[in-house]
Amino acid sequence: MEIPRQNLRTPGPTPVPEDIVEAMSQPMINHRGPEFLELVNEVTEKLKQVFMTQNDVYVLTASGTGALEAAIVNTLSQGDQVLGLSAGAFGDRFCDTAEAYGAEVRRLEFEWGGPIDPDGVRDALRETPEIKAVLVTHNETSTGVTHDLETIAGIVKGEFHKLLLVDAVSSLGCVALPVDGWKCDLVATASQKGFMIPPGLSFISISHDGWEAQKTAAMPRFYFDLAAAREYLGTGQTPWTPNLSALYGLRLALTKMLDEGIENIFDRHAGIGQFTRSGVVEMGLELLCRDERRASNTVTAIRVPAGVDGAKLVGLMRTEEQVVLAGGQGKLARDIFRIGHLGHVTREDIIEVLEALKRVLPKVGFSAG
Amino acid sequence: MEIPRQNLRTPGPTPVPEDIVEAMSQPMINHRGPEFLELVNEVTEKLKQVFMTQNDVYVLTASGTGALEAAIVNTLSQGDQVLGLSAGAFGDRFCDTAEAYGAEVRRLEFEWGGPIDPDGVRDALRETPEIKAVLVTHNETSTGVTHDLETIAGIVKGEFHKLLLVDAVSSLGCVALPVDGWKCDLVATASQKGFMIPPGLSFISISHDGWEAQKTAAMPRFYFDLAAAREYLGTGQTPWTPNLSALYGLRLALTKMLDEGIENIFDRHAGIGQFTRSGVVEMGLELLCRDERRASNTVTAIRVPAGVDGAKLVGLMRTEEQVVLAGGQGKLARDIFRIGHLGHVTREDIIEVLEALKRVLPKVGFSAG
Repeated sequence: MEIPRQNLRTPGPTPVPEDIVEAMSQPMINHRGPEFLELVNEVTEKLKQVFMTQNDVYVLTASGTGALEAAIVNTLSQGDQVLGLSAGAFGDRFCDTAEAYGAEVRRLEFEWGGPIDPDGVRDALRETPEIKAVLVTHNETSTGVTHDLETIAGIVKGEFHKLLLVDAVSSLGCVALPVDGWKCDLVATASQKGFMIPPGLSFISISHDGWEAQKTAAMPRFYFDLAAAREYLGTGQTPWTPNLSALYGLRLALTKMLDEGIENIFDRHAGIGQFTRSGVVEMGLELLCRDERRASNTVTAIRVPAGVDGAKLVGLMRTEEQVVLAGGQGKLARDIFRIGHLGHVTREDIIEVLEALKRVLPKVGFSAG
Repeated sequence: MEIPRQNLRTPGPTPVPEDIVEAMSQPMINHRGPEFLELVNEVTEKLKQVFMTQNDVYVLTASGTGALEAAIVNTLSQGDQVLGLSAGAFGDRFCDTAEAYGAEVRRLEFEWGGPIDPDGVRDALRETPEIKAVLVTHNETSTGVTHDLETIAGIVKGEFHKLLLVDAVSSLGCVALPVDGWKCDLVATASQKGFMIPPGLSFISISHDGWEAQKTAAMPRFYFDLAAAREYLGTGQTPWTPNLSALYGLRLALTKMLDEGIENIFDRHAGIGQFTRSGVVEMGLELLCRDERRASNTVTAIRVPAGVDGAKLVGLMRTEEQVVLAGGQGKLARDIFRIGHLGHVTREDIIEVLEALKRVLPKVGFSAG
């Protein structure tokens, strides 16, 4: 089966630039040898710059969900009280992971498509002083909302001194997330979003407070044990055989990102996000997120217009226009469709999407404005 | 940094054939779309043929250690008594994983470099009827020994009806392991060995008895939850974002393997293993494994000759001959070096190693015969 040429506009996997594909084609090496030591050290150093942190950062051979599991199992014990903030499918998943390992998760739920209310977080922490950690999704991929992590972190860390565990899978490397500046303890992200490489790697930072928590954290762990990651990184290795191809790609991707400049990357995403939202609103579509300040610059969720079959719309976009959009997830499965605009993305990619939408929408019973 | 041309003879990662590298370069797709459904279904069907099983087989985005963790956490509960068979570093690691999750592991240890004694397994199971599962490493990569899994499985399953969890990371797809024929319950392997693709994926089969155990298995799991894998595979998906590039490579690798014929692959490995052992013995070196019937056809461990610095030998082979061998692991770190001959390997690759060894050995104080 030949993979067709598509404009892949899911919020991950995202398109991989040609030079990164080429870098990934390099031959295998001994992951216990000197070439690997050089590779992992360079990548780790550059990851720290993109994470804007002096904390330890580790590369895990797993997708983002694995790194989020690592954040939990390395800092918590069964029975620990945890505040889980959720306004979407990924917020829920983070809570589910902590519960699977025996944490007592108090779920603070917000409307899907709306932001997490920082005042609600403050109230919950005041009410339940036993809470040890807060789980928060920075950018909720399922709704296209970027939560106000800066303010939330100020409350969690500045006012209550709790552990702050952050799902940054679809934000880090695309929108500002100064890990040290906001005092985030564990921040997890993945390769197939802002980093322009295929899925298969995830990255996690851990702060001093995170390591302090790790000392007594009793949740079981082996593959995702960050103490093993720390020990092996000290010798220029990973504990388990790493995804070398993706690491070759990551090295070049990080070089390209630092060459472009982190702030410039944020600006590019902001510009394209704004351009996407304006474009869909102009054709008479309605955004799920009504708060423009919280609208995500990496993924836009759009309400399926009344009378339209969202699955048919997404299907025709793919088969007739070679534009791959994402449907909704969880309880929004039928109500929205989503355009990803993160990583290796240009304004031209979005123009193609908008033009295609204008052609396809009438075919599913909606007159584009 | 440019990766040099090397004869990579570690027991994984192994060299990736050019056509597989090219297949891996295909563009990203939506992992919730129809192209992925076709990909994962084809790959799963072919994996079953290579596993020689009608059992369920799942692809995990993790290295082999992750799949071994999956085998444990999906079938066992904290406090379960487990018999761990070990005669090397990977046997130990499998036991360590079960212990990390709270199993009571009775370790039955054998000499590193020797085989697991099936009679010892029978005695242990007779002595401790409470044992629920047996952990066994089919091919011990750290010593170059292929244990007699057929006989061990006959005892564990045929005589005692215990769960049999198998580390087949460096055996499956290289030496015979008829999963159904030997009634193995959970069998885990990884992409970078017999499957000729880079590290980053692992594969696991689970039997009917395995699923029965899963119903009451209380060890916590999320990323490695096989129930989630089963549910998603039913819709042509994986629960979490999969390593697409490696899956593209895997599809072609499996096609090539089935075209070559599983039995022919076993024969090729047997011939090359034998050729490697004869070659090193002829030059006066001593094999770690003294039992020719149990000598591994995927990796050969050789004793570092008296007075020779093994690290220097491996170092010179790399820098002067571009032949990458592996040193020893764990308590054999200084005592052996290893030649990998699995996956995409030819007799010519081994001739190159032997010729290089003849040139390098005198430089480290050993007169090759």
